[in-house]
Amino acid sequence: MPVVVEQSTPAHELAAQLRDAETSGAPRYAALARRVRELVVTGELPVGTRLPAERDLAAALGVSRVTVASAYRTLREEGFARTRHGSGTVLELPEDRPAWQWQSADVPGVVDLAHAAPPASPLLGPAYADALTRLDTHFPGSGYVPMGLPALREALADRFTAQGLPTTPDQVLVTSGAGDAAALVWEALLETGDRVLVEHPSYPGAIRSIELSGGRCVPVPADAADPDALIEAARLAARQSAPRMAYLMPDFANPTGALLSPTGRRRLAATLWQQGVLTVVDEVAAELALDGDPAPHFAAGLPDAATITVGALSKAVWGGLRVGWLRTDAALVERLSTVLGHRQLSVGLLDQLAATTLVRDLDAVLADRRDQLRTQRDVLVAAVAEQLPDWSVTVPTGGLSLWAQLPPGLSSAALTAAAAPAGLLLAEGRVFGTGAAFDDRLRLPFTRPAGELRSAVDVLAGLDRQLRGRATPRPVPSSTVV
Amino acid sequence: MPVVVEQSTPAHELAAQLRDAETSGAPRYAALARRVRELVVTGELPVGTRLPAERDLAAALGVSRVTVASAYRTLREEGFARTRHGSGTVLELPEDRPAWQWQSADVPGVVDLAHAAPPASPLLGPAYADALTRLDTHFPGSGYVPMGLPALREALADRFTAQGLPTTPDQVLVTSGAGDAAALVWEALLETGDRVLVEHPSYPGAIRSIELSGGRCVPVPADAADPDALIEAARLAARQSAPRMAYLMPDFANPTGALLSPTGRRRLAATLWQQGVLTVVDEVAAELALDGDPAPHFAAGLPDAATITVGALSKAVWGGLRVGWLRTDAALVERLSTVLGHRQLSVGLLDQLAATTLVRDLDAVLADRRDQLRTQRDVLVAAVAEQLPDWSVTVPTGGLSLWAQLPPGLSSAALTAAAAPAGLLLAEGRVFGTGAAFDDRLRLPFTRPAGELRSAVDVLAGLDRQLRGRATPRPVPSSTVV
Repeated sequence: MPVVVEQSTPAHELAAQLRDAETSGAPRYAALARRVRELVVTGELPVGTRLPAERDLAAALGVSRVTVASAYRTLREEGFARTRHGSGTVLELPEDRPAWQWQSADVPGVVDLAHAAPPASPLLGPAYADALTRLDTHFPGSGYVPMGLPALREALADRFTAQGLPTTPDQVLVTSGAGDAAALVWEALLETGDRVLVEHPSYPGAIRSIELSGGRCVPVPADAADPDALIEAARLAARQSAPRMAYLMPDFANPTGALLSPTGRRRLAATLWQQGVLTVVDEVAAELALDGDPAPHFAAGLPDAATITVGALSKAVWGGLRVGWLRTDAALVERLSTVLGHRQLSVGLLDQLAATTLVRDLDAVLADRRDQLRTQRDVLVAAVAEQLPDWSVTVPTGGLSLWAQLPPGLSSAALTAAAAPAGLLLAEGRVFGTGAAFDDRLRLPFTRPAGELRSAVDVLAGLDRQLRGRATPRPVPSSTVV
Repeated sequence: MPVVVEQSTPAHELAAQLRDAETSGAPRYAALARRVRELVVTGELPVGTRLPAERDLAAALGVSRVTVASAYRTLREEGFARTRHGSGTVLELPEDRPAWQWQSADVPGVVDLAHAAPPASPLLGPAYADALTRLDTHFPGSGYVPMGLPALREALADRFTAQGLPTTPDQVLVTSGAGDAAALVWEALLETGDRVLVEHPSYPGAIRSIELSGGRCVPVPADAADPDALIEAARLAARQSAPRMAYLMPDFANPTGALLSPTGRRRLAATLWQQGVLTVVDEVAAELALDGDPAPHFAAGLPDAATITVGALSKAVWGGLRVGWLRTDAALVERLSTVLGHRQLSVGLLDQLAATTLVRDLDAVLADRRDQLRTQRDVLVAAVAEQLPDWSVTVPTGGLSLWAQLPPGLSSAALTAAAAPAGLLLAEGRVFGTGAAFDDRLRLPFTRPAGELRSAVDVLAGLDRQLRGRATPRPVPSSTVV
């Protein structure tokens, strides 16, 4: 909701209105924030009101400035306030969160294009059944396998080695997914203010995790239409910004689908390494080449400690199976494992047993998954071409999604908001950016069955006609997208 | 290894020795650290050498001070250096890590008293088998259930409500364990420098996670012999240190086994709440009362936002099943869920399905577990009384471990180091502290079968005779203990 009128509220007046909060209990900052929310929702404090400076309100209330700062921060995080440079903290009403955010993908009749997450592999059920027959030999123990089940670490190391990236089991750490692996890296290695190169757009969870660990994202433009343009841009950014780390998806990036060429990735890897940048390589979609052979691992040919490769079974097998990994230098694996152990002593044992079988059978799992995604991609591309001729799409050679360029006057945020009541869940473009970019973009995953994809494009075509030209900017939602 | 001799190495000399590192590749700080390690291990740089000031070495090498600082930090973390106030960074050799740290509990012939982790509940296998029959209805979806499976959240909310803590499902967030839940809280809510009250001793994973999120632990003395003494100490610390949060285990604390009285917990809860302290209540052992009735929930009677209660099935059911939760105010649950989603979109679905059954059947699971732990506690207490008469133990009325006071002259670290080659894995006392305290303490979990507990005490009695009086202080290991 755009804020139209602005007026200030003096500290002593607001303090009087907040007096109830002071006796209502709970941590004081939370109580203050809650009372302000009530005043906004009931209209006693109009939207657009500028709040007093933190120190003034703190003095008027007789509390510490930290308490007021925490209350303001809570309000901002909840969407009830915004801080503008030069004009302080202004009250607003939170935008409706995108409906998909907390909605399960399992609701009948709802088409979920908010997640780029395919249904379960047909090999998952048998793998679980088999794993269950082997689980009881572990029952007498603690159930903890720090660093991961040895057989799983070995299977992963063997697969890396066979793919031209020599790896021993002690270079592999098992995690609860690729996101868990990457978050662990930021948590363990980033210090406040450290810069991290990221493709722009990129995976929202990574961007938020980097920020949460005190890192600062340095966005580097990325596009499926010219994937290797990333290389020069990253090289420039590495020289200018002195990043400590980088987070890249060289293989079918999320959301663009861009694939770095074999030559391009070698050049980029070498450049970053020479600049002393430790690169986190997210390979969550790396095995999903739909039109050609997979590219060599980004990490190939570099010292082990130059990269941390993260991956998971979530795309090949299923998001409901929580097994991922990271691969790097053995000493760094041990260090990261200690940090992970403070949070979680082990990944679920049954999932690890099933994963061990599935990694050994991954070529069969992938053959099926690639056929499915290829068909669905082609259906989606054809439907978009037919029904949304003004939308521009670069057809990716792998991965899970298109990254559509919307026609002028159509807002991705408005489209997402309007689609939810029609039973179509979307992730709006801006969640993939570091700022307010990409309201002219929409990620379209081809992870659902063909019929659902066609229905989704029908809905989008109808909304396109309704909405074109009525775009209203909205704040970037704090979102959870895969 | 105590460092005896100290000598300085001039920056230009060390820079010359590190020249190889500059051309060996990898991130520069890592290469520098690796080269220093080599020089220490080969004896070219003697243990006890004082390294040059960071800025001097940076100048001599022509690298940034950040690079040198990172190299020094790496060396410290790996145990190859120590920074002493007033005397700079001094090289040392790392202590042997306790053998249990990376060792699986599943090794035959090894008695694992390093983890306070019981074998699997006999109800786990059937619960998994049943869950597997229901899993395939979820296969068509993404497998992601943000915040947790609705049926599981409802089962947990119902259990809290039945125990006198009224709770709705939207106040429950499912996590990958209690540690995952607590780490999420620190990650989402702590800011650098925020103080957190913790019992001293306390669960090492929590202490390290708080520190990793930039928090500062304020230790409050805790002891099973006088549990309610914690209340006055915490009240004093809350007034003196202005902590933002607290982390407490009011029910059979790890490692002490202390149980706060019903009156004591009410007073402590009210005090912390009045001081504006948000308390994380770790209830991982709360249902393991062995001699009496469980106490009321610490959170009972307070506003929902005053506490965050964390729990898990790891102790009642098994550590290999990764399902935990947190319970607080619904708005805070939503906020924490967003932060968790950046890292991991969902907890494993099969584990959640099994957990739903197990939470509904938890009284049956617990009846069995309590019988087992009561028997094993009594066996362990009797064996200690008989074979280790100089050790002092307060018998806890619940939980999973004794917190033994060792006789004068016996070092917990020395005992732990000596026990590993004898096939007995221990967690030394100091890992439960914030500083170097508790080398005179040893946690003895009674989570293993009676025969293993008796063998363990045999080994300890033998080592006690050997080691008494030969204690050597060692640096606190960075360890993973449950």
